[in-house]
Amino acid sequence: MYALLLAGGSGTRLWPYSRSVRPKQFLSIDGSRTLLQATLDRIRALVPPEQVLVATGAAYADLVATQLPEVPRANILVEPFGRGTAPCIGLAALHLRRRDPDAVMAVLSADHHIERSELFCELLVVGARMARRGYLVTLGIQPSAPSTGYGYIKRGAFLHRAGRHNVYQVEAFVEKPDAGRARAYVASGDYFWNAGMFVWRADRILEELAAHRPAVAGPLAQIDAVLGTPAAEATLTAAWQRIENVAIDVAVMEQTTHAAVIPADLGWSDVGDWAALAEVLPRDAHGNAVVGAHIGLDTRNSLIYANGRVVATIGVDDLVIVDTHDVLLICPRGRAQEVKALVAQVRQQHERLV
Amino acid sequence: MYALLLAGGSGTRLWPYSRSVRPKQFLSIDGSRTLLQATLDRIRALVPPEQVLVATGAAYADLVATQLPEVPRANILVEPFGRGTAPCIGLAALHLRRRDPDAVMAVLSADHHIERSELFCELLVVGARMARRGYLVTLGIQPSAPSTGYGYIKRGAFLHRAGRHNVYQVEAFVEKPDAGRARAYVASGDYFWNAGMFVWRADRILEELAAHRPAVAGPLAQIDAVLGTPAAEATLTAAWQRIENVAIDVAVMEQTTHAAVIPADLGWSDVGDWAALAEVLPRDAHGNAVVGAHIGLDTRNSLIYANGRVVATIGVDDLVIVDTHDVLLICPRGRAQEVKALVAQVRQQHERLV
Repeated sequence: MYALLLAGGSGTRLWPYSRSVRPKQFLSIDGSRTLLQATLDRIRALVPPEQVLVATGAAYADLVATQLPEVPRANILVEPFGRGTAPCIGLAALHLRRRDPDAVMAVLSADHHIERSELFCELLVVGARMARRGYLVTLGIQPSAPSTGYGYIKRGAFLHRAGRHNVYQVEAFVEKPDAGRARAYVASGDYFWNAGMFVWRADRILEELAAHRPAVAGPLAQIDAVLGTPAAEATLTAAWQRIENVAIDVAVMEQTTHAAVIPADLGWSDVGDWAALAEVLPRDAHGNAVVGAHIGLDTRNSLIYANGRVVATIGVDDLVIVDTHDVLLICPRGRAQEVKALVAQVRQQHERLV
Repeated sequence: MYALLLAGGSGTRLWPYSRSVRPKQFLSIDGSRTLLQATLDRIRALVPPEQVLVATGAAYADLVATQLPEVPRANILVEPFGRGTAPCIGLAALHLRRRDPDAVMAVLSADHHIERSELFCELLVVGARMARRGYLVTLGIQPSAPSTGYGYIKRGAFLHRAGRHNVYQVEAFVEKPDAGRARAYVASGDYFWNAGMFVWRADRILEELAAHRPAVAGPLAQIDAVLGTPAAEATLTAAWQRIENVAIDVAVMEQTTHAAVIPADLGWSDVGDWAALAEVLPRDAHGNAVVGAHIGLDTRNSLIYANGRVVATIGVDDLVIVDTHDVLLICPRGRAQEVKALVAQVRQQHERLV
């Protein structure tokens, strides 16, 4: 079994801790291993580092190499620029198919948090079994709330039982719903969050791309023809100019007749903003999640994310406080999603801070 | 005319900006001149720096000399340790009486803010005129609110008119009142805040101390006997061990029959906590008082006191944010007075931060 870690993201919603030079996947949320490192750690029992590919941008290749010294440098796939997940996954599949015609690959985001690692590995094993039978498998996250922030996967017919885990056909991929629909989805028990985690054979995903997405498969075929030759890099760059910018969900998963979903109650989080990050940290008796040094009087339900400096608070409730060496962020937990808008403003006035 | 600047305080209510090694008087509230420097600037038209004495503790003598290079080093009176204002003022009066038997001295706190400097000087001139007639003059601050945080001075009979300013006998000094009394005081128009600003002849205050406070006057007389001789320092230290620890208000002003008060509407503030500091800073269109770099979305009525770092806020209202190189303080404006309690806790856990 192989894994592809998608480590090319450059989001700003954990600003000012995340910066364009060090996006979320390269950060630790609790002061220990970074999200990228934790992603590797999580699957280590299943996939040895030599069988892990990491896709990222040129700006982050060295950071990946530094953070994952166990992964051979040749396994770091550097995209000339981001083109969505379909081209990136296709590129990795080319490499893996050449290395092992029977390769099964798990595709995993490198900037998510998963509470239950053992269960996760169990499900990947089930996924691999289905993948060998030709399925394109996705893990469907058991929703913990009727979120409007994720796409949903609707399960269809029962396909397979493996121990305590069931596998279903995918009936549909559904866009981010409004609040009413989200409640109905969650109440039905048939819908799961689409967290972008997949297992399939490398040759199968390439077949599916060829069948449904020629604007991805065409340039990939040109790359495949020169893979391992001196022309590879120039061909990749040229192909990437033309290749369609599209997500794998749209390119394949919504098209194929072979999509399968495994419901997964993983304690998953995309750590998508500071409020989400607070959720995955332990809380003290006052409901505070604290990283670093904090002294508080009457301080509750707050996230205090210090960085060397001591954070002292009085009478603070439900606040996010993030201290970095050059920027300090303060906002209510309920408004953490507005960080993105704030960053847009910061970019105009203090570009070096983004 | 002479002035004595009282610069010995070591309060903690502007922590973490103020520290035990650099109390409030040595800080700037708006990024320009420090409160001590501003105190000197304010009276410069009236009192040349050579005629300004500064009383402080040994720990702060160098800081005074650095911040006030215009003031001769010999004018910095170093108390062996703090004994309240009466001994300190008495010591300064000894020096001034020796230098000029007719010396009139203004006694001023070095850590207050005064908006209207010209008016202040006008009132000191009126005060000096009354002082020459033997009065012990205090400026009574026109209350802007029924504060329970200050002592009050009740005016008595009209004494003198000087231009647009009236001078009254002091009928009584009143301790910090409860809220009901404070409202009644302010409504009556007869009560003024006691801000500890005085004008008198040096010889008169020594006479009054001799008359009312032998436990201060006695040790002072011993110091006076050796002033300017090699024995002066040792005598001062020995006398300071015995001298009564008492404020000039209690020692003299509440006793004398010669106390006079000049109502003064100065835009005065003791900058006693962060909420008070916010009051004396200019506000932007959203009611924010900002020192340093700030980027805010929907941020109102807050004090942002940055120090190099950029402070970024979303959805913040009525908050005090104080950033220093090693501590960050966040508290609602209405709870700024609790900083003192917080500092007590910090002292136990991180003594170097106080």
